Amino acid sequence: MLDRFKVPKSDEVRVPESSLRETVTAIFEKMGVAPDDAALGADVLISTDLRGVETHGVSNALREYVEAYGEGSLNARPDWKLITESPGTAVMDADNGLAVILGPRAMNIAIEKARTVGLGMVSMFNAGHSGAIGHHAMLAAKADMVGMCTTADSWTGVLPTFASEGRLGTNPIAVAAPANNEPYFLFDAATSSVAVNKLELARRVGANLIPGWIADREGTPIMEETQVKEYGEFYMLPVGGSREQGSHKGYGLSIVTEIFGTLLAGARPSMVENIHGAKHSFIAFNIAMFTEVQTFKENMDAMLRTLRETPPAPGQERVMYPGLSEHEEEQDRRANGIPLHKEVIQWFSDICGELSVPGLKPM
Amino acid sequence: MLDRFKVPKSDEVRVPESSLRETVTAIFEKMGVAPDDAALGADVLISTDLRGVETHGVSNALREYVEAYGEGSLNARPDWKLITESPGTAVMDADNGLAVILGPRAMNIAIEKARTVGLGMVSMFNAGHSGAIGHHAMLAAKADMVGMCTTADSWTGVLPTFASEGRLGTNPIAVAAPANNEPYFLFDAATSSVAVNKLELARRVGANLIPGWIADREGTPIMEETQVKEYGEFYMLPVGGSREQGSHKGYGLSIVTEIFGTLLAGARPSMVENIHGAKHSFIAFNIAMFTEVQTFKENMDAMLRTLRETPPAPGQERVMYPGLSEHEEEQDRRANGIPLHKEVIQWFSDICGELSVPGLKPM
Repeated sequence: MLDRFKVPKSDEVRVPESSLRETVTAIFEKMGVAPDDAALGADVLISTDLRGVETHGVSNALREYVEAYGEGSLNARPDWKLITESPGTAVMDADNGLAVILGPRAMNIAIEKARTVGLGMVSMFNAGHSGAIGHHAMLAAKADMVGMCTTADSWTGVLPTFASEGRLGTNPIAVAAPANNEPYFLFDAATSSVAVNKLELARRVGANLIPGWIADREGTPIMEETQVKEYGEFYMLPVGGSREQGSHKGYGLSIVTEIFGTLLAGARPSMVENIHGAKHSFIAFNIAMFTEVQTFKENMDAMLRTLRETPPAPGQERVMYPGLSEHEEEQDRRANGIPLHKEVIQWFSDICGELSVPGLKPM
Repeated sequence: MLDRFKVPKSDEVRVPESSLRETVTAIFEKMGVAPDDAALGADVLISTDLRGVETHGVSNALREYVEAYGEGSLNARPDWKLITESPGTAVMDADNGLAVILGPRAMNIAIEKARTVGLGMVSMFNAGHSGAIGHHAMLAAKADMVGMCTTADSWTGVLPTFASEGRLGTNPIAVAAPANNEPYFLFDAATSSVAVNKLELARRVGANLIPGWIADREGTPIMEETQVKEYGEFYMLPVGGSREQGSHKGYGLSIVTEIFGTLLAGARPSMVENIHGAKHSFIAFNIAMFTEVQTFKENMDAMLRTLRETPPAPGQERVMYPGLSEHEEEQDRRANGIPLHKEVIQWFSDICGELSVPGLKPM
């Protein structure tokens, strides 16, 4: 994450993982979520915070889930089912369940299929938010597979290249793969210029947005630094920003996430008819069906080490690969707690009082 | 394609598809390629030119193939084999065969597997160039499947984010999917800022490169318009160009193509050891195993029409989707011939004389 989006030291309060886990599990339970599911949901969010991906951890997401459970747009006890199934594929109707919790179930189904036929895929519709989809892709990597996940948002505030109206979500793609000695490869990125949660984070820490990240109400990219605008006052752009810089690539990949999650599930894209919630896909590639797992991991080690040891360009500190800084962040946060913005601490204090659940115990 | 890369009208000679097909097939045969394979190779290249993707048609690619066959780095009669296989997966050792020709075979194997278990994937190593991988992805779309292809180049001139030395190829990703009435969705793009062949095209038509497309020899992105430099005098950048504009996304996706094509095949990434040629992956997702094919196609129609009919931003003509302009170009080129640069016409004239094969018959 760019430095400008990090919580300033003066505004941060560090909370140990265990306390956060206890409180978040209790909040999910108060929302009516079954105990096992509540613990799973807390695990997904806190694993994400541990990796430093605070855009998708407890700070932004949880309060929205609490609101959605409260108003009934999220179903705390979804009666999800697989409506079609083949040896390698399935479609899950999530019955308005939170994909933070159903995502691991879907990926586990994909993993089981891949154990049998080499590949497995579940397309999920009628779902809520997935949290950081990289978390679900990692489940496959931990099972010695390559994992891939995609999301097609129900929100449509991202512009197609050249367009004046939003048609797509921030629609991320995540891929994870295991190595022997190097930390896991974990790519997880929006196909838009930036994840929408990052705008919320920028607002909280008072950071300006970067040229090419958003467009005005008419669809013209804003090519200078700008403050975060109110929802409704801007559109987001596909990664690349302008056509000449490659925004058609982010735009095209964004449609791919609709094909994987929405169209293969037999669901309607939100841009056409917003009736099927968020859609996600979960794909597992069983390494052992392709090649020796040890060969794969040795080659991953060699590749990731080569990337990490590449000399940096003038003015740059070092070359990283996707998943490396998150791995390092996790070591720090497990030892020293998860930094939350004081505004988030206040929200927890309020909601814990309201729901009569154990409050956070900062370090 | 941006206008600046199109062949100027004054420099173009239009050649009918049939003449180009006859000549290119004959050239492949003279290289020692079996007649069926020669016709297939010509079909892949000319289909690409028909779609207006002249970076990957006969103009740039064919002369390199002729050189490679001549010097023996490409094998005209490869003894390719599947070295591992499962119900949904296979690994193909291409024995230094041209993937332009072996790509359709690999995708057809993936399609057959997807007919049985819902998904199919072939990872290919020891291969030559694939041509435009979108062509191979389209084979799945024409079989009522979603097709996906990736390439990991043997050339490593693309910088990781923040790096001063190239580690990756232009590593494209293609995805194709069918609709009912709308032209096929066909996304096919390099994960680098631009395809390397586009630099050759820019040199031919005398166009400047766009800021953020290449870096200097030390890895610093060149952020103003610049002329095409000689090979060895620059590095290419991942899509996004700079970190703030999202180059870590192009970089991460580029590594994903290595995982799909190289690592799953049990092969060595070129950045580690350049011994396994180019690597490709071919994936088919059988729509009928997920949902009704008609439902899928109706939803594709609705989505693609919605995108196409989105009002454009000020100063823009219209909104397109991947595959639309290529479809329109194809109608024109089938009727009016394929425009080749006069320099390319000269190359054909020379090589046809040298090899004693039928020359091009311009319109």
